[in-house]
Amino acid sequence: MLSNFIIVLVETSHPGNIGAVARAMKNMQMSQLRLVNPKFFPHADATSRAAGADDILRHAGIYADLQTAIADCHVVLGASARDRTISWPELTARQCAEKWVNPNHHSKKFALVFGRESSGLKNYELDLCHYLLRIPCNKTFSSLNLASAVQVVSYELFVTTSQNQICLPGNHNEEPLANALQMQAFYDHLHQTIADIGFLHPDRSKSIMRRLRRIFNRAELDTKEVDILRGIFRFAQNHNNK
Amino acid sequence: MLSNFIIVLVETSHPGNIGAVARAMKNMQMSQLRLVNPKFFPHADATSRAAGADDILRHAGIYADLQTAIADCHVVLGASARDRTISWPELTARQCAEKWVNPNHHSKKFALVFGRESSGLKNYELDLCHYLLRIPCNKTFSSLNLASAVQVVSYELFVTTSQNQICLPGNHNEEPLANALQMQAFYDHLHQTIADIGFLHPDRSKSIMRRLRRIFNRAELDTKEVDILRGIFRFAQNHNNK
Repeated sequence: MLSNFIIVLVETSHPGNIGAVARAMKNMQMSQLRLVNPKFFPHADATSRAAGADDILRHAGIYADLQTAIADCHVVLGASARDRTISWPELTARQCAEKWVNPNHHSKKFALVFGRESSGLKNYELDLCHYLLRIPCNKTFSSLNLASAVQVVSYELFVTTSQNQICLPGNHNEEPLANALQMQAFYDHLHQTIADIGFLHPDRSKSIMRRLRRIFNRAELDTKEVDILRGIFRFAQNHNNK
Repeated sequence: MLSNFIIVLVETSHPGNIGAVARAMKNMQMSQLRLVNPKFFPHADATSRAAGADDILRHAGIYADLQTAIADCHVVLGASARDRTISWPELTARQCAEKWVNPNHHSKKFALVFGRESSGLKNYELDLCHYLLRIPCNKTFSSLNLASAVQVVSYELFVTTSQNQICLPGNHNEEPLANALQMQAFYDHLHQTIADIGFLHPDRSKSIMRRLRRIFNRAELDTKEVDILRGIFRFAQNHNNK
């Protein structure tokens, strides 16, 4: 689904940045890169910073100007950190992903355009864009490294794509959680153990057990963990019989 | 609100990466950087790649090992791309932000730990972490550049912070949470106790302790609870001396 999102870099000065962009893209399963009039490309710095994403560099299209580079695209978004006098329709990276990463739009091509490292996009280039693409950030230090900006935008597209497909990592356990019956046996055993080792003062028995329950309830023990802890209880109980 | 999230870099090889991390942090209003045994620091490459985030470099703490660097932290998250045999509780960057970027947690310190460029975090370092911190990404090309990884995590924290600008009344615990130093003393005591009562088979010592850490890390013990449990440990240790 991500192959219809195309990263377009305009007049990048440092070839290392082009390589770092390719790596950032591949980390997020993006593959389509277009370069408008890069200062140096191909270049050893690009290959080195790509760190294995050479395939993206190899297939990158090279264009003389932005208009040609985006000719086949249906929606063009220009990344821009600067406040501009002309108010352009804006989308954050996340809004962009939420709006367009879905099967209804899979036949459209989207250009995500990133300007020069020092000076961004020029006004005549922004005129070719349908939206400004914003990355929320510190207003007083808003210039992201080029590859970092591509990383964040690609990440948002990837996350939205995978939310429909892959389960994000949860706290998945191999072992089933202990059920209430097992936990009651666990607490009975704990209670008996701390009595056996002499810790439990009868007056405080209830409040101590309540505190211990709070701790282990929060931990949400699985059955294996219950077994291990009860193994420890047994050794503590038998400690004086050695 | 972001000042309680601390970026910890472990044995970074390239000083340029440290500078790029500082820039990525400042872009997202993060400020707290700690360096564990950096190969070269300070260094001109760091300053150059920081691109104006020199203040973060200047105030960065430098530590001999991870344990010392996180001693005052309450929750420790280790960034890891690799699948590991032991399943550790995992959070994505977004889940981490949603869980902890809110006023209820403003008195806690969070360490976000990033490992070496080539080899990540070692197992004994992951043992100090309560959670693995995951950035969803391409499974077949999952190694993000160090600064890119920090960029994505900082971005998620920033976005959640700006969404939560309205302060809610705190639901805070009566007792302060135990910090990493107190938890380390707790685990040392637990380790000694299960050795003393004869539970600990030397061959299985590491894996058992790792499992026990997982349980008590999930429980997020407060200092009073640590005192109670260590009281129980003492009684178990002395059980045969009665």
